[in-house]
Amino acid sequence: MLLASSKHAFAGLVSQTGKRCFSVSKLYASQATSFAVNGERLWNDIHHTAKWSGPSPGGVTRLCADENDKMVRDWFRDQVLALGAEYKVNATGTQFAKIDGTDNSLPPIAMGSHFDTVATGGKFDGALGVLCALEVLRSFKEQNIKTRAPLVAINWTNEEGSRFFPPLGSSTVYAGQSTIEAAHASTSNDGSPLTMGSELTRIGYVGDGPNTFEEFPISAHFEVHVEQSTDLEKAGKSIGWVQGWEGMTWYEAVFHGQNGHANTYPMHGRRDTLQGAAKFMTSLETLAYHMGGRSTVTSLQSGPIGSCNIQSKTKVVFCVMHKDGDSLLKMGEQAQQSAKAVSALHNLEHDWKRTLHLLPGDFTPEAVDCVARACGDKGIGSRTLTGHDSLSTLLKAPTAMVFVRSKDGISHAPEEWSDKEDCADGASALGKSVLNFDDYLEHQSK
Amino acid sequence: MLLASSKHAFAGLVSQTGKRCFSVSKLYASQATSFAVNGERLWNDIHHTAKWSGPSPGGVTRLCADENDKMVRDWFRDQVLALGAEYKVNATGTQFAKIDGTDNSLPPIAMGSHFDTVATGGKFDGALGVLCALEVLRSFKEQNIKTRAPLVAINWTNEEGSRFFPPLGSSTVYAGQSTIEAAHASTSNDGSPLTMGSELTRIGYVGDGPNTFEEFPISAHFEVHVEQSTDLEKAGKSIGWVQGWEGMTWYEAVFHGQNGHANTYPMHGRRDTLQGAAKFMTSLETLAYHMGGRSTVTSLQSGPIGSCNIQSKTKVVFCVMHKDGDSLLKMGEQAQQSAKAVSALHNLEHDWKRTLHLLPGDFTPEAVDCVARACGDKGIGSRTLTGHDSLSTLLKAPTAMVFVRSKDGISHAPEEWSDKEDCADGASALGKSVLNFDDYLEHQSK
Repeated sequence: MLLASSKHAFAGLVSQTGKRCFSVSKLYASQATSFAVNGERLWNDIHHTAKWSGPSPGGVTRLCADENDKMVRDWFRDQVLALGAEYKVNATGTQFAKIDGTDNSLPPIAMGSHFDTVATGGKFDGALGVLCALEVLRSFKEQNIKTRAPLVAINWTNEEGSRFFPPLGSSTVYAGQSTIEAAHASTSNDGSPLTMGSELTRIGYVGDGPNTFEEFPISAHFEVHVEQSTDLEKAGKSIGWVQGWEGMTWYEAVFHGQNGHANTYPMHGRRDTLQGAAKFMTSLETLAYHMGGRSTVTSLQSGPIGSCNIQSKTKVVFCVMHKDGDSLLKMGEQAQQSAKAVSALHNLEHDWKRTLHLLPGDFTPEAVDCVARACGDKGIGSRTLTGHDSLSTLLKAPTAMVFVRSKDGISHAPEEWSDKEDCADGASALGKSVLNFDDYLEHQSK
Repeated sequence: MLLASSKHAFAGLVSQTGKRCFSVSKLYASQATSFAVNGERLWNDIHHTAKWSGPSPGGVTRLCADENDKMVRDWFRDQVLALGAEYKVNATGTQFAKIDGTDNSLPPIAMGSHFDTVATGGKFDGALGVLCALEVLRSFKEQNIKTRAPLVAINWTNEEGSRFFPPLGSSTVYAGQSTIEAAHASTSNDGSPLTMGSELTRIGYVGDGPNTFEEFPISAHFEVHVEQSTDLEKAGKSIGWVQGWEGMTWYEAVFHGQNGHANTYPMHGRRDTLQGAAKFMTSLETLAYHMGGRSTVTSLQSGPIGSCNIQSKTKVVFCVMHKDGDSLLKMGEQAQQSAKAVSALHNLEHDWKRTLHLLPGDFTPEAVDCVARACGDKGIGSRTLTGHDSLSTLLKAPTAMVFVRSKDGISHAPEEWSDKEDCADGASALGKSVLNFDDYLEHQSK
């Protein structure tokens, strides 16, 4: 992915992020210094929206375009309409809530994240980001804070990719990396014939709102998210500014063998894809330790279904992660070598596909600096270990993220947790980041 | 399983099976000597019924109580009604077609097998047995062969257990090893909420026919089946008499770990059930080679579904096979030790269940002898390496099986194959076996 920030001039100072950056806050008085949200209201929203969930004790299971996703979307629509926002839904279901600024010729400053969760996920991943955006809009209105640029709160569709693959389903269309047709055709991870398009249609969330940056440009994109690792916790900080991300790549390996009777077929000579896949999965674990990265098998599907068949086809979906781009690529190459080796051992054939690939990178320095100054002493610089919709918007506009401390770094689990005060700090930092960026825009225009 | 043959007296001679057995054929003239079926008609039936299949190039996928199972059942009903049979369907869908004998006070001699197949199965496993029974009834009628005991051709429901677990779904009810309620509650291997009962109801195959041996006793049960291994092929024989079976046990191991984010969670400290299952599966392969038995993982299901979750629950369904009962039990114990070891390594918990257990055993000697004499020079003695409905009937009545040569021993695969002449030899041997047993009954009654 390429950074899109070259069009923005830097003021030439070194910020807390350690990057050369501008220092607009030192030149202009800002409303950002004293801004704070209503943390109690945000906390109530977090728990209120968590009720729209499939069975998931302690957590939230709200899969893209399921009934609960529809409910939380309807609620979000009602909240932003009550604020007087201009509301749109686009063809891939993403919700936009725009509030006027004092100069509506400027592209709006966006605050976005996602309401969809993984299966047996938590209350915070995604939802916190959208609810912080909503809380900022509410607090700005209550506190009569008016930005020069318009603002837009965004609920991006299918960030997780947990029901329909691939993830970042709508923001990649917005960034020109995918198409509406491809996003609609996203297939079910559980093998059902439903697609993201058919399910969005079913819940009434295929709209005529803007689909791409070109149709609806933004000045910047800011996103609050739980950290999902432990840097903030270890540093004793409630929030952080996200400087960039580690690299990650998803692969699919499909092994093809031979059908046979589970009881009667001799051991030697079998072409058992599940035994091949077992050795392949073990090799991925070893690979991660050898390379100082991480690897996870996220899905294994084998067939034929039954209680008396040698498994003649097995699909293994996995991801590898590394902070270094070359090492990330090497992990993929070595994984493929393992697939070849187990295929030779078990006389299998295999297909190999790289489905998503993201080299490590950095967010836009001037946007990161806005977040860093918004965090102040409450924060530190951090890096995300996974993908977010902000990686899509970064291709088109200055982008940065606010991290909120995660207890024990646990996420994608019912045990996911961030304290009330930390969530409020995150929302306040989001509002301040937006105000900082609005100041920056004003400075740039002069 | 206990043999049920102690009520039958043996004549005290040693048969070709090497067992002490009776020698009625040497005392009584039999119609069996010259009997032969119409092999062309049988071959046509095999190919005609193979059309009732889901997509399965070259083979047959006709899962219990699916649309194709309904079609082949309807066809079988029409065929036996055309022969003048008394036709019944019982509560678990098994079809009975009874033809009078000259002494209808005798329990009928049964010929049974099953029309259901595994997914991506072949044309012969199961269907051949029912079609041979039908062919014997037709040929007896054409050749004016009348038995003393009535005859019954049976299509047992859900022998395979490929759609609904457990297998032998109806014959175990017949033998008093299960209940109608339990069989109806048999759950889908693909995790769907459908049950065998709901699907049998849907296709209209829950009837009021006899469910148990006590309601509908039989004098004996004979079954033609493809060998599914290579003893006959190696010996250059088209058919065989089945002396007994090897032992086999099915287990379910369910590993429980911890949810977590696939990208962000550190490698060390994960409680990843799929990595535990991978090592467990590999250990089962090693175990089979160490013990001189066989093992097969027939299903692996993990969750949560999604592209970004550490898999917190994984179910492994597998079977172990051994010709020696003690070794079979030891394989189960060692597999459980492996499950404990990988659970300790990955900090998992696990549930362990033995779902089906069958020690090695022998069919009824006098019934086997009837088959052995029916096979004559065309056959040899063999053993089956898997379960059949005949293992259920054996608990209640003298039982034996006829094997038909399988090309390369392949079954549960589209490549499953037996030659036309071999199938005809199997059907002729079935008819002769029935005639031999009918003679035996007459001899016993004197």
